[in-house]
Amino acid sequence: MKTYYQHIHLYKFACEVFKKIGCPEDHAEQAADVLINADLRGIDSHGMARLAGYVKQWEMKRLNAQPNIKVVHETPSTAVVDGDGGLGLVVASKAMEIAMEKSHKVGTGWVAVKNSGHFGIAGYHAMMPLRYDMIGMTLTNASSLVTPTFSLDKLLGTNPIAVAIPAENYPPFVADFATSAVAYGKMQILQRQEKEAPLGLVQNEQGEASHNPHEPKIGGALLPLGSDREHSSHKGYALGAIVDILSGVLSGANYGPWVPPFATAGKTQERTPPVGEGTGHFVGAMRIDAFRPASEFKQHMDQWIETFKQAKAIDGQEVLIPGEPERNAHLERLITGIPLLPAVEESLAQLAQQFEIEKPAPRAQSGVEA
Amino acid sequence: MKTYYQHIHLYKFACEVFKKIGCPEDHAEQAADVLINADLRGIDSHGMARLAGYVKQWEMKRLNAQPNIKVVHETPSTAVVDGDGGLGLVVASKAMEIAMEKSHKVGTGWVAVKNSGHFGIAGYHAMMPLRYDMIGMTLTNASSLVTPTFSLDKLLGTNPIAVAIPAENYPPFVADFATSAVAYGKMQILQRQEKEAPLGLVQNEQGEASHNPHEPKIGGALLPLGSDREHSSHKGYALGAIVDILSGVLSGANYGPWVPPFATAGKTQERTPPVGEGTGHFVGAMRIDAFRPASEFKQHMDQWIETFKQAKAIDGQEVLIPGEPERNAHLERLITGIPLLPAVEESLAQLAQQFEIEKPAPRAQSGVEA
Repeated sequence: MKTYYQHIHLYKFACEVFKKIGCPEDHAEQAADVLINADLRGIDSHGMARLAGYVKQWEMKRLNAQPNIKVVHETPSTAVVDGDGGLGLVVASKAMEIAMEKSHKVGTGWVAVKNSGHFGIAGYHAMMPLRYDMIGMTLTNASSLVTPTFSLDKLLGTNPIAVAIPAENYPPFVADFATSAVAYGKMQILQRQEKEAPLGLVQNEQGEASHNPHEPKIGGALLPLGSDREHSSHKGYALGAIVDILSGVLSGANYGPWVPPFATAGKTQERTPPVGEGTGHFVGAMRIDAFRPASEFKQHMDQWIETFKQAKAIDGQEVLIPGEPERNAHLERLITGIPLLPAVEESLAQLAQQFEIEKPAPRAQSGVEA
Repeated sequence: MKTYYQHIHLYKFACEVFKKIGCPEDHAEQAADVLINADLRGIDSHGMARLAGYVKQWEMKRLNAQPNIKVVHETPSTAVVDGDGGLGLVVASKAMEIAMEKSHKVGTGWVAVKNSGHFGIAGYHAMMPLRYDMIGMTLTNASSLVTPTFSLDKLLGTNPIAVAIPAENYPPFVADFATSAVAYGKMQILQRQEKEAPLGLVQNEQGEASHNPHEPKIGGALLPLGSDREHSSHKGYALGAIVDILSGVLSGANYGPWVPPFATAGKTQERTPPVGEGTGHFVGAMRIDAFRPASEFKQHMDQWIETFKQAKAIDGQEVLIPGEPERNAHLERLITGIPLLPAVEESLAQLAQQFEIEKPAPRAQSGVEA
């Protein structure tokens, strides 16, 4: 049973909370905007459900609410940003702004980020350049839950990749996905429902295929995209590794099993001493007219999208364009409001009490989840 | 039963053949070098086995042996290269040289290529920047063999991604993989052996899981990395789509089902009229010291590699670094020579006859395949 909230009420509440922990107003607004966009796009695991986690990080003195985010090295098309231990939600957006400026000047901009934290949904930052007719790309490493092919040790995070590409009349192409076979959130849903997972998503402590969604907590692990060697899990492993190296090794952040855990996760131990500073990201922006006229490109993107949407589909199915399900959720939730689970409502009520602010009020009339 | 050949003999033979179809000497050497490196790295499907295919393209007047490869648009960090219908093997290498020059000047260089053809193994071009302490990246689209998730139509090629990253004392990290669940070459091997494929690699004409490795030729298709929706084939589809858009739409080449087939493949019909020129690639080079000192980065790469190599492995298995199997093949084949199947030997003998040149002689003493 979920209760629905108008997104603007949740956004304002998150803003208040971020201000209460000491964030400057613009940072609080930025951070709240990333969270509410996750909820709007239907990625519930990365929205208001995480707000208490950021507060917990602050309580654990792992979060600098007033970071001095700065460029520590740069060339015309690159920069390294030191996030000063700030909210990844804010740091990644600043980094993307720098990438966009560089793209404006020399065609493309690529920014590696160290000393940051969990940045929310990768797609949010990747979509920022769209309005300027730029392609956006965002990568981040994360605390280790995933095994390389044939490994018993968890050495990689779910290390997502997001790429956003504008079209003319169609909505943009927005891919945003973990490089593991599934995101951990999918296992958490099965855990709550006390259901089994299909084989190929997790392995047990001995590295055997398992149906148990609890595996990552009891010595097992998430598997890389591809699931097993026969179905090319070495490709998912390679992808997760590329994300880790560009985000962590290139920036001077931690990498592999050293990436610090998100506060609420508590699923992995931090390895010490660290091999770098905080969590790492890698973001890029490419001006389309650095390659061909943007109008020409976007017309061809329309044709690309149309061709794929019109593909003959398997009975009862539909061929979707990356980003389409999230966009549909967005359009729907602007109207219905955002459904929150009781546990999430409870966490918001606790935050309201802790900071002596009003908790968000549900919609007078509850929506019905589609 | 395979016969072994010294790689230098095969290289010289390929050079001669490329010169006979009219390639300038430097192009012939470049093209032969890409092919022989595929064979050395153990990627037999992309080496001498393809030589006759390039000749067939030339015979079909689909290959310009003396292309005027030129930059048609550029910014400080980007360029679009028109391959003038030349050998992809040559065009992609020239494009990477341009990317490397731009990287040298402004930190990174990104080159989209149109009007090109099959460029051999993606990893070859991605590895070119390694010697200059740069990260290399190569993408290409290809004729359509792969279905998007839930589609019956084949709309994407096996669209590979290659990323090469230098280390200090360890060999480089080199990922090079098709974004389909498996490369088509794997199905061809099973076809020859009259063996069944594991479920999750191909679908039949109705979009159902199939064991038949012949499916892509009889109305079925290769599946994207991830295999099915439950195991996140939408991620493999998104990856293949990103490769297609950056290689084809951004450059002005063909994309999706319009990408022209490689001559020998004959597996797909070319859609007309075309939506762009030839096949497209996208290559990039990033100077490491545009982010952090190269020596520092490479020492951390050593630590990254060591950490992954030392992971506790599943019984009887070993955790490998991307590029390790290919490098091991390379070291071995420099000594044993390169094993060729009778059908490949036969195709070389025919080329020798056609162009009145000497066919390569096998090693006096045959090696034994490991």
